[in-house]
Amino acid sequence: MGQTVADLGEFGLIALLTQRFSQGEHVVVGPGDDAALVRTRQGHVVASADMMVEGRHFRRDWVAGSDVGHRAAAQNLSDINAMGGVAHSLTLSLGLPPDLEVAWVTDLATGFAEEAALVGASVIGGDITSAPQVVVAVSVLGAVSQAPVLRSGARPGDTLALAGRQGWAAGGLAVLGRGFRSPRLLVDAYRRPEPPYAAGPQAAAAGATSMIDVSDGLLSETGHIAQASGVAIDVRSAAFEIPEPLHAVAAATGADPLTIILGGGDDHSLLATFPGDLPEGWTAIGTVAEGEGVTVDGAPYDGPTGWRHF
Amino acid sequence: MGQTVADLGEFGLIALLTQRFSQGEHVVVGPGDDAALVRTRQGHVVASADMMVEGRHFRRDWVAGSDVGHRAAAQNLSDINAMGGVAHSLTLSLGLPPDLEVAWVTDLATGFAEEAALVGASVIGGDITSAPQVVVAVSVLGAVSQAPVLRSGARPGDTLALAGRQGWAAGGLAVLGRGFRSPRLLVDAYRRPEPPYAAGPQAAAAGATSMIDVSDGLLSETGHIAQASGVAIDVRSAAFEIPEPLHAVAAATGADPLTIILGGGDDHSLLATFPGDLPEGWTAIGTVAEGEGVTVDGAPYDGPTGWRHF
Repeated sequence: MGQTVADLGEFGLIALLTQRFSQGEHVVVGPGDDAALVRTRQGHVVASADMMVEGRHFRRDWVAGSDVGHRAAAQNLSDINAMGGVAHSLTLSLGLPPDLEVAWVTDLATGFAEEAALVGASVIGGDITSAPQVVVAVSVLGAVSQAPVLRSGARPGDTLALAGRQGWAAGGLAVLGRGFRSPRLLVDAYRRPEPPYAAGPQAAAAGATSMIDVSDGLLSETGHIAQASGVAIDVRSAAFEIPEPLHAVAAATGADPLTIILGGGDDHSLLATFPGDLPEGWTAIGTVAEGEGVTVDGAPYDGPTGWRHF
Repeated sequence: MGQTVADLGEFGLIALLTQRFSQGEHVVVGPGDDAALVRTRQGHVVASADMMVEGRHFRRDWVAGSDVGHRAAAQNLSDINAMGGVAHSLTLSLGLPPDLEVAWVTDLATGFAEEAALVGASVIGGDITSAPQVVVAVSVLGAVSQAPVLRSGARPGDTLALAGRQGWAAGGLAVLGRGFRSPRLLVDAYRRPEPPYAAGPQAAAAGATSMIDVSDGLLSETGHIAQASGVAIDVRSAAFEIPEPLHAVAAATGADPLTIILGGGDDHSLLATFPGDLPEGWTAIGTVAEGEGVTVDGAPYDGPTGWRHF
């Protein structure tokens, strides 16, 4: 057993973690004071926040500290991506069991910083406190270079499109839930999502009318767009390319790979609607019409549509 | 037993809470999308984050949901106050036990919104998830109208000064810890701190060289200024007016009221150093000199200096 969080103490831990957080040029005051100060030349800030709880969102025997760090950063960066923006700053607040090894926490911080670096974001502050299980609460700040793409702008006649991997993380979770560690590609996708960070700003520039990231499930997120926009959306199941490893999971578990794709979350792929041609990297998966609700191949869908939080 | 969080579900709960959050004119996109969008005309944003965990920072049998809401907002607004700024936006992320009553959570949201309204801040977003105990993670955004006042600017010859109540909340906590509910003034001070929100910007305008809010303890926070500024600070114990109810606590518990003031936190009073005259509402409590460390009346202090997180 290595050094624990209680051995090192709050201030020692903060010093160790902040070493891992390099600061971008926009950061005037970084971690270490009552608050940070960040330049926002665009005259606005796009902001979001998320919380992950051990035992609910991750298990320490399934994922490494670095994976939790990557995932916590990714799901927040993805929220800015889904507005058509790019994140520039993150805060990281941690609840930690006193007997947790310091190495696990520094791994988390390293993973968090690595993910933030993918979009050039800085970790500007946060908080550390004790808790009975690991809690990771993140807030993110970013900017858009045009009007933000909301959930509410889809119009009849638009095409529903997808960017990024979809169903991979859910396949990995299904595998882990059955006590297996392969197919490795899917397990890795669950441990470290790879959100399509370029696709959000690209969609905004291409005139996307609505956008959302798939964190809970593809159909439930599609439902959010349909509801916020006051439209009906039909998803075409033949549009999805089923990745090879999902076939293997289906064979081993008896699950339908399409069910995993339609109900799965955690990949932080993007869903958007476009009135015209799709930008490169986006795949048409459905159509927007007058009405309400989400259908699959023109019919109601009775499989799982997404993760339920309670 | 009323309706529980699990009865209502995530989306019902979010709808119920966001009703309580009115949005200021600076909020272009409020809660309900992937992220919020806020105008920041000043060209910068001051940001901080904090986490409170049930059983560690509060007990549900000691404080009401509304108190937890007030306190969670107050400690974050206070971080912006301590930079000499004013908060304009907050995010609220909640981890909630599924069997928690919805009324407790709506009370929390109401208290949070009321505290935010004291400085004109809007609750622009957040997250809700299940957790074994209540976790409240907040992030705050604000602005300063001059350079932020850091911890690192104290200079030899400066006067150390205090604004706001100090020791009241710690007195209330001592009372609750012994199973009592009075003196009521102190218990209320613990349940709902009243940070001196006007004093931060006022100190900045008056040329404060350093500033910090007292969340963990007066002497430990003084130590942060001394260390960050590379100076020695002597605190003069006779400078503190001991509030009447603290004498009562001292009599009942055998504690020295001065010990409660010097080691107590949670009031979110402000400590600042000034090279010249103090603004109104600030009380001189010590002096800055060359050297390092914190002394009380010229001698080392061996009592408790502040809250330890592990």
